[in-house]
Amino acid sequence: MIERILCLFSVLVIATSAIVAQAAADPLPSWNDNAPKKAILTFVEKVTEQDSPTFVPPPERIAVFDNDGTLWAEQPMYFQLFFALDRVKTLSPKHPEWKTQEPFASLLKGDVKKALAGGEKAILEIVMATHAGMTTTAFEKIVGDWIATAKHPKTGKLYTDMVYQPMLEILTHLRSNDFKTFIVSGGGIEFMRPWAEKVYGIPPEQVVGSSIKTKFEIRDDGPVLVRLPEMKFIDDKEGKPVGINSHIGRRPVAAFGNSDGDLQMLQWTTAGPGMRFGLIVHHTDSEREWAYDRKSHIGRLDKALDEAGAKGWTVVDMKKDWKGVFP
Amino acid sequence: MIERILCLFSVLVIATSAIVAQAAADPLPSWNDNAPKKAILTFVEKVTEQDSPTFVPPPERIAVFDNDGTLWAEQPMYFQLFFALDRVKTLSPKHPEWKTQEPFASLLKGDVKKALAGGEKAILEIVMATHAGMTTTAFEKIVGDWIATAKHPKTGKLYTDMVYQPMLEILTHLRSNDFKTFIVSGGGIEFMRPWAEKVYGIPPEQVVGSSIKTKFEIRDDGPVLVRLPEMKFIDDKEGKPVGINSHIGRRPVAAFGNSDGDLQMLQWTTAGPGMRFGLIVHHTDSEREWAYDRKSHIGRLDKALDEAGAKGWTVVDMKKDWKGVFP
Repeated sequence: MIERILCLFSVLVIATSAIVAQAAADPLPSWNDNAPKKAILTFVEKVTEQDSPTFVPPPERIAVFDNDGTLWAEQPMYFQLFFALDRVKTLSPKHPEWKTQEPFASLLKGDVKKALAGGEKAILEIVMATHAGMTTTAFEKIVGDWIATAKHPKTGKLYTDMVYQPMLEILTHLRSNDFKTFIVSGGGIEFMRPWAEKVYGIPPEQVVGSSIKTKFEIRDDGPVLVRLPEMKFIDDKEGKPVGINSHIGRRPVAAFGNSDGDLQMLQWTTAGPGMRFGLIVHHTDSEREWAYDRKSHIGRLDKALDEAGAKGWTVVDMKKDWKGVFP
Repeated sequence: MIERILCLFSVLVIATSAIVAQAAADPLPSWNDNAPKKAILTFVEKVTEQDSPTFVPPPERIAVFDNDGTLWAEQPMYFQLFFALDRVKTLSPKHPEWKTQEPFASLLKGDVKKALAGGEKAILEIVMATHAGMTTTAFEKIVGDWIATAKHPKTGKLYTDMVYQPMLEILTHLRSNDFKTFIVSGGGIEFMRPWAEKVYGIPPEQVVGSSIKTKFEIRDDGPVLVRLPEMKFIDDKEGKPVGINSHIGRRPVAAFGNSDGDLQMLQWTTAGPGMRFGLIVHHTDSEREWAYDRKSHIGRLDKALDEAGAKGWTVVDMKKDWKGVFP
């Protein structure tokens, strides 16, 4: 009899220990116990409660995250632009004409501001000169090498150490509740894929971003995809719902952003039927990170901040709501 | 003591029964015990053997499948074209001009051959007239309604009952070995997504196909994506590796096709390092399905059949290798 009871008891202990462990640990330890943390936890609870009218079946649990300013920092300029500038320097010996040709000439003299004064046209020229003309495999290696060593000019950290710990916790919490997490970023899709899996746990097939065209070619050593100096898709603003539809093919139930570039993604996501969740990271912390919103050139948050109230989106006050910023 | 032994015994039975069940069942019961079946089983075994040099980690277990002629039938013409023709009939009362305007006039008189005599231009006109001008949500419903009721003119079956049982078994076998299965088809991405999850177990985010442009708009009842009469991407031939790179972002380890439209996808997949698998479904069964290859207008298999030998791709002889065709 004792044996039988012990046997049953062991089975029970094994069966329940997993459940207990899950209930006991705080899935969002870097979040202060303010409204945003409660809102996230409540949303996940409600959509995963099997018999609730707010239940969402696992295949429909799609969550989309902007990258720059939402999953990692974006000041004083997008990190991909630092990559491009470093590439200009690396490639300059092969391009003597850049010594006199803008925007490259100013860049090589260290005058980033003057180089970027040409606006979108200048940026596009820099992007094409540094992101096109090689195979996809070669570009993947270039990005991988850069991201493993390049340091942020202000913090001295690796760029991948400037991801937001509280957002990593949301990614993990969602995935442990059968969500599929996607990046939907204005940044380059092939710039993010080489490191997104290791840093965010997001595989290449769940990264959506801006892209240039590629072309299939058979070379002597086999087939390659060549990156062409021509824009294919800009995954920003109105482009975000378009990119979501193209890559994911169903409307997400949760969207996380930080700027007006994410407005349409938030609108599209939260306008769907059933329970939805929208969240905006508001950069309010000039000490631990940066403080900027309505007037910033990078990551401007103006219209989306106004709309957040009306639409019931959660606005995170980085300074008040986050215990820590970087891991 | 007896109790303890019984307890241990129960635990052992529970723990091993799953393993035994898996080993005992044939994962490909619709395949005759010929070379193709052995090739598939061996490939899956080799890439999943933990300590083998041919081991592929689960995140890299990407398998891509063409749809028309590989997962479902494609004769006497692509099923999506039947959909388009049915849509022309349905929409014709709203388009009196179609009575005299080709290719619509011939179509409405039932002369499909004459209507399609205009080649690609005629087909494009029919596609745009039937696939564009509505929201993505409306189009999803149109496709869903059609696929649930429309019947194939020769077999009288629902189109989704003309999928290949042996290929469904491969999809299941791969997924039960931690593969992610993708469709990479020349067909319309939004034409396949509404039913691919139910029929193939492939979710919308794992469907890659040809597409037209969409545009984000805010209407009185909320945001929509409108389908525009303009091609965005043709996911065929050289387009397939491009589509794979864009949507999946890593090279598959296995590719399944049936025509020259799949040649570049097979080349791209099998040229990667490590163990790779390429398979071509050869339509040799004029009784149970159709027999066609080098001279067919639909699903021509010529160059890819020549290359299969040199590259070591598995060629399935439908008549000899499949016990059954449709479920």
